[in-house]
Amino acid sequence: MNAMPKRLSPDLIGQLVAIVGADGVLSEADAVEQVTRTCVPFRTQPSAVVYPRTVEQVQALVQAAAAADVPLWPVSTGKNWGYGERTAVYEQGITVILERMNRIVHVDETLGYAVIEPGVTYKQLNDHLKSTGSRLWSDCAGTTQHASVLGNALDKGRGLTPMADHFGNICGMDVVLPDGQLLETGGGSTGNNTVRHLYKWGVGPCLDGLFAQSNLGIVVRAGIWLMPAPEVFDFAAFEYKAGPERLGDFIDDLRELVMARALRSFPHLANDFAMMCILSQYPNDLLDGRKHLSESAAARWRKEHGVAQWTFGAGLYGSREEVRYQKRMLRKVFGRYGMVQFIGAAVQDNWYGRLVRKVAPMVNRLLGKSPEFTDVMVPAINLYRGIPTDEFVRQAYFRSHDQKPKTDIDPARDGCGFVWVGPVVPFTSGHVLKALAVTRQINEKHEFDFFVEVIVESARSVIVLVGVFYDRHNPAEAARALAWYHDARAAYLHDGYPPYRATSMSMPGAMDGNPVARDFLASIKAVVDPQNLLAPGRYGMPLRPADNAQ
Amino acid sequence: MNAMPKRLSPDLIGQLVAIVGADGVLSEADAVEQVTRTCVPFRTQPSAVVYPRTVEQVQALVQAAAAADVPLWPVSTGKNWGYGERTAVYEQGITVILERMNRIVHVDETLGYAVIEPGVTYKQLNDHLKSTGSRLWSDCAGTTQHASVLGNALDKGRGLTPMADHFGNICGMDVVLPDGQLLETGGGSTGNNTVRHLYKWGVGPCLDGLFAQSNLGIVVRAGIWLMPAPEVFDFAAFEYKAGPERLGDFIDDLRELVMARALRSFPHLANDFAMMCILSQYPNDLLDGRKHLSESAAARWRKEHGVAQWTFGAGLYGSREEVRYQKRMLRKVFGRYGMVQFIGAAVQDNWYGRLVRKVAPMVNRLLGKSPEFTDVMVPAINLYRGIPTDEFVRQAYFRSHDQKPKTDIDPARDGCGFVWVGPVVPFTSGHVLKALAVTRQINEKHEFDFFVEVIVESARSVIVLVGVFYDRHNPAEAARALAWYHDARAAYLHDGYPPYRATSMSMPGAMDGNPVARDFLASIKAVVDPQNLLAPGRYGMPLRPADNAQ
Repeated sequence: MNAMPKRLSPDLIGQLVAIVGADGVLSEADAVEQVTRTCVPFRTQPSAVVYPRTVEQVQALVQAAAAADVPLWPVSTGKNWGYGERTAVYEQGITVILERMNRIVHVDETLGYAVIEPGVTYKQLNDHLKSTGSRLWSDCAGTTQHASVLGNALDKGRGLTPMADHFGNICGMDVVLPDGQLLETGGGSTGNNTVRHLYKWGVGPCLDGLFAQSNLGIVVRAGIWLMPAPEVFDFAAFEYKAGPERLGDFIDDLRELVMARALRSFPHLANDFAMMCILSQYPNDLLDGRKHLSESAAARWRKEHGVAQWTFGAGLYGSREEVRYQKRMLRKVFGRYGMVQFIGAAVQDNWYGRLVRKVAPMVNRLLGKSPEFTDVMVPAINLYRGIPTDEFVRQAYFRSHDQKPKTDIDPARDGCGFVWVGPVVPFTSGHVLKALAVTRQINEKHEFDFFVEVIVESARSVIVLVGVFYDRHNPAEAARALAWYHDARAAYLHDGYPPYRATSMSMPGAMDGNPVARDFLASIKAVVDPQNLLAPGRYGMPLRPADNAQ
Repeated sequence: MNAMPKRLSPDLIGQLVAIVGADGVLSEADAVEQVTRTCVPFRTQPSAVVYPRTVEQVQALVQAAAAADVPLWPVSTGKNWGYGERTAVYEQGITVILERMNRIVHVDETLGYAVIEPGVTYKQLNDHLKSTGSRLWSDCAGTTQHASVLGNALDKGRGLTPMADHFGNICGMDVVLPDGQLLETGGGSTGNNTVRHLYKWGVGPCLDGLFAQSNLGIVVRAGIWLMPAPEVFDFAAFEYKAGPERLGDFIDDLRELVMARALRSFPHLANDFAMMCILSQYPNDLLDGRKHLSESAAARWRKEHGVAQWTFGAGLYGSREEVRYQKRMLRKVFGRYGMVQFIGAAVQDNWYGRLVRKVAPMVNRLLGKSPEFTDVMVPAINLYRGIPTDEFVRQAYFRSHDQKPKTDIDPARDGCGFVWVGPVVPFTSGHVLKALAVTRQINEKHEFDFFVEVIVESARSVIVLVGVFYDRHNPAEAARALAWYHDARAAYLHDGYPPYRATSMSMPGAMDGNPVARDFLASIKAVVDPQNLLAPGRYGMPLRPADNAQ
């Protein structure tokens, strides 16, 4: 690791420049280092980075790589901060960043979908819809607004609105195969299939799934479904105030709300520490020489800001009758466990919205909350309308810097250290409490604070998203984070909770728990990509023996 | 075709008997002929039929077939009448019927899913849920109650309730691969993945889709999601009474109802002829020497029974507020085009239900409707609660027999001739009207009556399901049906509307319109099943050159 990357032959560099243009190739070591920085405690560096602009350029790159026998590591924008970003699982090779392929090819107002390239960001798609007066909403993730819509979907990322299942809303892909051919998924006749972005299952075996968390091809274009703006939108802000002994009942009641579609958004239940990351800066003064906060120090800090044990928001969507139902149920069920406030009006562009925004600081003060609660109110509500923001991803700087920056957020570039693991857990009190207990124990063991968000995935499962923040520039701290990561991952797998996403640290072994599936995929990989040129080692599919892998 | 099938070697027959028992092997020609009859105008016969009971038996069958180099054609129950039933696309080989693998392995009341084997039928699953007092509803198809739940889902069949997308509700499979290994999809650790039936996307590439309409493995077990019974259920019966010039507006309004979730079920819009198939017997006396009814004869016949141009039902589901919304919208929108009646009460087991059932015949008489309208009322409503029935599949006998049988329906066995083609069409007035016009023209050309159901697939597409009925025992008639089928299929593909399902007549060429996808799948098939033993020729994946294919 961290060996100086081998330079590519001048001949190959020349070919890359001929394909994408001189401004699309980085091969100078400093430049390569800068654009491939990572937040996770594992770093490799490619020999070059290329930025294609067109499908044809991607096809030519695949062919040039094959001729030179140099692997390609494609990423959309690579802003999956804390999961591995643009880091290949091996040294050297060529990293392909698709951010310049950023065309919104088509938006269909009537049928509710867009066809986009992998460089299209949440902000770009949302701005486009707003500026064209579209009736459609896109979903977005809680991450940076500059992340790739398709990249997140292909990594099975999650949003918050009723369209939160990003991969589930992908329909119909164009994929450059390792041999350079362009595959159009969805059956029908190539170039003449009116329903390839409308009907998910196509004709014959469904291929879209093969290209999620995959190295079998490069997705260069796809359809993504969008939702029409609902007649009524509202937002419930909830704080869990009951004791820990009632958390299990709350989890079960929450599942029933989703099952009965009284809850249509997919909230992230932030624990106190996760909420503090959003609201505040790490209180180093409370550490008392420890590596993480003591129980009592954390409690003191929490109280200062007026943060509850669990906090989250939920969007309400639908006709007036439907929203009335949702309100009735949320009030009834959430009311048993804490405080629920319906504050969707705060984003309305009228006198009432202005009034709510005006009185919010006073109300928060009366409730004993810090002013930062008011700062995040509007961006939080907007997330539930699919409007992306960098407000929440600023938490990446929470421990690494004295002050979170206000603009130009890029924690990978700026040396923030953090890493995520998100086991998928059955949506029952028994399983969720067990996963939380396991997490607490492992974080305790490795002396990390207990940061967790319980992400509602569906009525049937949740993702228990756990993160740690560490000092990237301190090798001992990085080693501690790495040890935590492997330990946590192993513990979740042991308990039957597979992480929904691997990172550059866990990809090569991602399928080791299921050898039949791993070998089945490896045999497909061997025939589709016999030289193993596309992202070798991604999600359990074999590394190239020649590559300098971890 | 129709050559006497080659007998298997006594040695192989002995092996089959050793694996599944003597009562699980049919190799006598008459018996084989009887269980492999088909409704479509294309017939092949296997050399033997086997009925495994367990996963281990399926694995042993795959290995025995490999040793003997004899292909296997697996079907679940093979009751996909009008699509090809148990008919392989080649002569000889062994047909594997999975109907004796009929265990309901698990029903999870809390998380809303069942794990079942491929022999489990709609009736069996529904009876099980009812007899255990489950809060869960299964969906069913409009076909026979004895069809396989998994088989229909793997063929991408459709139901009617909010869980109508059968394949979309499959989650986590056990698959016997061509080499006899058992593949567990869903990532995680084999045998220790708590979320494999809860979370659809698993870890790494999603494999479930590969086994839909596929010959890459034999699905021997899968999870299927079920819905909790809603607080309120109602049913809207609708008749389209506006002129044909307003049908386009109606289609667009219908899409908006689905988009706005005012319509949560997935209705089948039956045209007048389709409705007559359900209500009546073919009026041969009106033919006047023609092969199909003249415009005026059809109109006369329709009038006799009081059938509208288009008829369909829709389920209403949810809380009382939600159903109020749905009612308001259906009344408002449907009211513009015809008559809507809310008659869900007819299936209530109380005094009000009894009253509605009692007055229904009188109301129907007043509305000028034949008594058969009343006969189908309760079964039709029940379909929208997932309760299967053989009432509607009786239409298969509509043209072939003097009287539809009341019980023991099996149109394949009983020599009924009919065949379906179901192009997927964008849910816009322009596309739907075009697909209907193309259909009318082709049926006219081949002198078939115009039978069509427009099946709402989602807010984005519909399936225009077209069927013809013909006399199976008359070779000229069978040839006419075959010619119609190939013509219709080609016309839909030409217009960009790929059929959602192939039949034994179209499978080998099913992917020919998309050569890159076809070759990609063929290369996967070649590595997963190098002997090409599993269902060669299914959905465009290569036939064995040695087999006596069409």
